[in-house]
Amino acid sequence: MKKVKIALMGLGNVGTGVWMILDSNKKEIMKRSGYDVEVAKILVRNKDKKRDVEVPEEIITTDFNDILEDDSIKIVIEVMGGIEPAKEYMLKCMDRNKHIVTANKMLIATEGDELFEKAHDKGVVFNYEASVAGGIPIIKGIEESLTANKIEEFYGIVNGTTNYILSKMQLERLNFDVALKQAQDMGYAEADPTSDIEGFDAQYKLAILSSLAFGTKVDVNNVYREGITKIESIDMKYAKKFDMVIKLLAIAKESNGKLELKVQPTMIPKEHPLANVYDSFNAIFIKGNAVGDLMFYGRGAGSLPTGSAVVGDIVAILRSNVDVANYSHIAQNDLWHREIQNISESHSKFYIRITVIDQPGVLGEITTILGKYNVSLRSVIQKGEENSKGQVTIVLFTHKTSEADVSSAIEELMNLKPVITIDNVIRIEDFKN
Amino acid sequence: MKKVKIALMGLGNVGTGVWMILDSNKKEIMKRSGYDVEVAKILVRNKDKKRDVEVPEEIITTDFNDILEDDSIKIVIEVMGGIEPAKEYMLKCMDRNKHIVTANKMLIATEGDELFEKAHDKGVVFNYEASVAGGIPIIKGIEESLTANKIEEFYGIVNGTTNYILSKMQLERLNFDVALKQAQDMGYAEADPTSDIEGFDAQYKLAILSSLAFGTKVDVNNVYREGITKIESIDMKYAKKFDMVIKLLAIAKESNGKLELKVQPTMIPKEHPLANVYDSFNAIFIKGNAVGDLMFYGRGAGSLPTGSAVVGDIVAILRSNVDVANYSHIAQNDLWHREIQNISESHSKFYIRITVIDQPGVLGEITTILGKYNVSLRSVIQKGEENSKGQVTIVLFTHKTSEADVSSAIEELMNLKPVITIDNVIRIEDFKN
Repeated sequence: MKKVKIALMGLGNVGTGVWMILDSNKKEIMKRSGYDVEVAKILVRNKDKKRDVEVPEEIITTDFNDILEDDSIKIVIEVMGGIEPAKEYMLKCMDRNKHIVTANKMLIATEGDELFEKAHDKGVVFNYEASVAGGIPIIKGIEESLTANKIEEFYGIVNGTTNYILSKMQLERLNFDVALKQAQDMGYAEADPTSDIEGFDAQYKLAILSSLAFGTKVDVNNVYREGITKIESIDMKYAKKFDMVIKLLAIAKESNGKLELKVQPTMIPKEHPLANVYDSFNAIFIKGNAVGDLMFYGRGAGSLPTGSAVVGDIVAILRSNVDVANYSHIAQNDLWHREIQNISESHSKFYIRITVIDQPGVLGEITTILGKYNVSLRSVIQKGEENSKGQVTIVLFTHKTSEADVSSAIEELMNLKPVITIDNVIRIEDFKN
Repeated sequence: MKKVKIALMGLGNVGTGVWMILDSNKKEIMKRSGYDVEVAKILVRNKDKKRDVEVPEEIITTDFNDILEDDSIKIVIEVMGGIEPAKEYMLKCMDRNKHIVTANKMLIATEGDELFEKAHDKGVVFNYEASVAGGIPIIKGIEESLTANKIEEFYGIVNGTTNYILSKMQLERLNFDVALKQAQDMGYAEADPTSDIEGFDAQYKLAILSSLAFGTKVDVNNVYREGITKIESIDMKYAKKFDMVIKLLAIAKESNGKLELKVQPTMIPKEHPLANVYDSFNAIFIKGNAVGDLMFYGRGAGSLPTGSAVVGDIVAILRSNVDVANYSHIAQNDLWHREIQNISESHSKFYIRITVIDQPGVLGEITTILGKYNVSLRSVIQKGEENSKGQVTIVLFTHKTSEADVSSAIEELMNLKPVITIDNVIRIEDFKN
């Protein structure tokens, strides 16, 4: 049996999963890869930290050079996260002809180009399946299985934390704050949940997937982003009334020759496959011009699912020739230049929830303003009961409308005397073009 | 731009899809593969047959030797179907160092070994993504993405025709015959629908997938098979009453150290992701010991989806080195020998529907016999209204029970005087072990 040495940079959540899988599935991995995989070094920040797995002391190091300068280490696994020093370390390892596997979505989404170019120059493999949707093989799916297709659009639930929160809100009628607290107690959400609930995590993943699917460079800052903090259980209730559910979607589609990229809470029909993706599960729904509708569903995070993607990437390297650096990259990133649409050019159907003083003619005033901006209505719900302040809720469902028109209409609505608040505006996606 | 010549054997449904994709997505395929792909020859049985696509006359041939003896043809696509001459042709092409892509599930499931061995000996690539579940990349998913996992079990809806029929029966309360007729009108079912509705098609696919997932040779004859012809709309109704739906599942799981492989109509909880797979869609739900639950969903048949898988396989070959035959096969097929469990050793929960003469004590007699064979009941429904002959329906839901015990009990029930017919016996899968 051939032997190969690899190194881990990082031994947190994902690193621990990688270690456990390499240990418990050693026999399977040997048979499938043809190699006995030895973890020769693990880079950590603090040697004395208590860990969930038992790792031989002698392979733990705090000195990156122990990995870089050991030419017997052929593959380096970056699971430390963050931009620096992760990026510098990977670039240096590539310079020493080491193949790289990473789970670092933020780095790939923001400064990936430099890494892709270096890997290309040096002929080393640079795999990053684990960076999007954990154990779901969506990167390989797009890059290796759907190569016959023009990908027309995709819709992803790519953040498990927010999907868990929205599921709780929908199924158990919890408020956002309570659901968030539960997600934190379950370990799904961080103490500072900003990156998840404000959609930053999904924004990185959308940038990575859309750049692959459409063969173009995507600047993450051109991806429109909106989190789920404004969603209330009453919005869930109105969605249900119209046979819809609310999901945080990462959306990529073509629109007038440009790419429309947005992360946003979205109302979708309850019979769509994505509507039935609950808890912390992830799913990506893709349309290709040959394959038609396709969906990948699974665990988008967690030590073992993410570890599964990392170790799968290691096996893929071992099945090529690990000893040589002559891998020929298909530079997917710049196959076709595509412009990204500004959100103001986008068109959607909208759900708009407004609180108004209950007085004669208020609905007429509202619809007049909407009409002025060409926002036509599919249906209106005016809730009968006033609250103690004499206020009622009005819910509007619009036909397809431009984002700019809706924004202008809403601005004018806010100045309308009887309008107390515009409580929420949620885009609707019915998957028809 | 490098050029490569390929040949098609067959220009039916799938062959036409391949031709259309190579034509309409030529630019994408060139950029992704690095090759300008030329279809140099197409083998057909009848040159004069009217076709859905326009193909230059000069590349159509009825003589296999035009392909075999042309050394400039590097890849041969077998989409003719059937065992012979497809097998002979592929073996001969491999002998001439041609790489092969096939969509032929029957051949792979029954006589694939010889083809795998020949490909191994000659170092040519032998790809067959299209043989299972059309456009869904389930073969690559298992073989290349889930390599870090011990796969513990999977459940597949792998036949679109039967899923279309069962969906119609469930959602529109059609009878089997009417639903089958609609499937035929829609082109989903053949004039002779036996292979689909009796589960043969799913049996082949289960043999292929389980051999890959568990790394063992699977004799297709050891896969238990039961079709959907006995399912009636009344069964759908009772399933619904217990929050379940009926699907034709291809099931593979471990059971006492053996593999349990069965194709059968199955009642599953309506909230399971597979329960929401409707119409002619396919889906495969997999559990790996690292990745956890994973599902692939998409079009399991059709010209373009199946063509998408075939052309994806072609691109994969082009990205390796098409000019040399030195591909090193990981012989997945015989990594681990696994025994296949006989269906009589299997354990399930059961739904049993019986028609009896409505007379005092009949339920007691039935439950006594069930008790004798250790079949314990979770619930019993006795339908109030008799039909004109004084007969009523009794529906039993059992706890987990051995197949052998249920068979014996049912045999004895059939001899019971008031029992008119055992109308149906359907296994229940709740995905808990």
